[in-house]
Amino acid sequence: MAGKDDVKALVFDVFGTVVDWRASCIRELTAFGRGRGITGVDWAAFADDWRGLYQPSMEEVRSGRRGYVTLDQLHGESLSTLLQQYGVQKLADHEIEHLVTIWHRLAPWPDSVEGLYRLKRRYILGTLSNGNIGLMTRLAKHGGLPWDAILGAEIAQNYKPVAEVYLRSAAALTLEPHECMMVAAHNGDLASASELGLRTAFVLRPNEHGPNQTTDTAASQAWDIVTDSFHGLADALGCPRF
Amino acid sequence: MAGKDDVKALVFDVFGTVVDWRASCIRELTAFGRGRGITGVDWAAFADDWRGLYQPSMEEVRSGRRGYVTLDQLHGESLSTLLQQYGVQKLADHEIEHLVTIWHRLAPWPDSVEGLYRLKRRYILGTLSNGNIGLMTRLAKHGGLPWDAILGAEIAQNYKPVAEVYLRSAAALTLEPHECMMVAAHNGDLASASELGLRTAFVLRPNEHGPNQTTDTAASQAWDIVTDSFHGLADALGCPRF
Repeated sequence: MAGKDDVKALVFDVFGTVVDWRASCIRELTAFGRGRGITGVDWAAFADDWRGLYQPSMEEVRSGRRGYVTLDQLHGESLSTLLQQYGVQKLADHEIEHLVTIWHRLAPWPDSVEGLYRLKRRYILGTLSNGNIGLMTRLAKHGGLPWDAILGAEIAQNYKPVAEVYLRSAAALTLEPHECMMVAAHNGDLASASELGLRTAFVLRPNEHGPNQTTDTAASQAWDIVTDSFHGLADALGCPRF
Repeated sequence: MAGKDDVKALVFDVFGTVVDWRASCIRELTAFGRGRGITGVDWAAFADDWRGLYQPSMEEVRSGRRGYVTLDQLHGESLSTLLQQYGVQKLADHEIEHLVTIWHRLAPWPDSVEGLYRLKRRYILGTLSNGNIGLMTRLAKHGGLPWDAILGAEIAQNYKPVAEVYLRSAAALTLEPHECMMVAAHNGDLASASELGLRTAFVLRPNEHGPNQTTDTAASQAWDIVTDSFHGLADALGCPRF
């Protein structure tokens, strides 16, 4: 791969690429509903709808119609909309807080943690996620994700795919874009990173959106690396197994 | 200790508190001078003078006379001044780079790493240093410092003891100041943090400035915790030994 030897840092999309947000959300929502005695709610649909409000909520910030607010706050607002829509009423503040912080407790894909430890011995590992620093920090502690630095949206006070998010993250590491490799399960994210000069690694996550996933089921371009796990990524980058 | 149970994150001063900058600088400078055949330079004095330019260089930013630039850049400018002053001439770019990045390769105090691992199991651990993200990230990889998040100066685009540096760091963790405990070997740093509502832990580092240290040789106030190692800090916070 051309230029691979220049890469000093791997910067990661997180939701979907490192952690399985959907299964984790459904599991927690279902347990909450059962514990609270809420019936008649399709929690899988709720989870998908919650994620569905993700892009529109960030678009308010990207478009400039709204100043930067954290993803925690956007998650809270989207939750409020959906609770009303699904007819779930009269939750206490601590219950709302419990639900919003589901996004702090997402489970890593089975290969994520060990793969990251392999990669960490040779590269700086940073998050380049739309999650805010507090969210990413708690998610990392929950899942044992060994990041060297939390970068991304909050550093840039904006949301991917706005160019500043990628460029400020590279600059925060005092690296040039071509010294950073974006790792993502999403072709669109890699396309944005690539246009700015970052190297790219596509990691297939065919079940991110559940069994009927239709998006990002294959690499859409000849990314620098195309693989289906963090072990595959570590192998491609010549990081030894433990 | 009143309020200790509210603490969710420990935020650390780094130079002097976590790592022994002086011995590391002297060791590296001496080795460089020997390898390069430079004679007649007192490298211990050089190291102290380099650190001596630290506060004046940051004051340019704090005062608003200059926009935010990274500590890496300030270190480079101070180095350039001192090389001229000490009559060290004609260094190549890669040699200058090697010297500036001495600050990326400082050795932790003997108790730092194990103490941090004890604390990490119960608390979020962040840097609240004047070092920029790239510097702090490399320093952590070099010394094996298990930070959860790199906060501090670059997040706030200013330098301690400006209030924003403390407040933005707490906010980045979505915590209130009283939920954060500042850990430092410097009474002045703790005084600034305390005024803003952070909890405080003083860790005595009696040799930070060498055998004749006269500053910060004792706690100047009744900080929440006063100790002389990160093991002492972990003990005071009830974090079990491994």
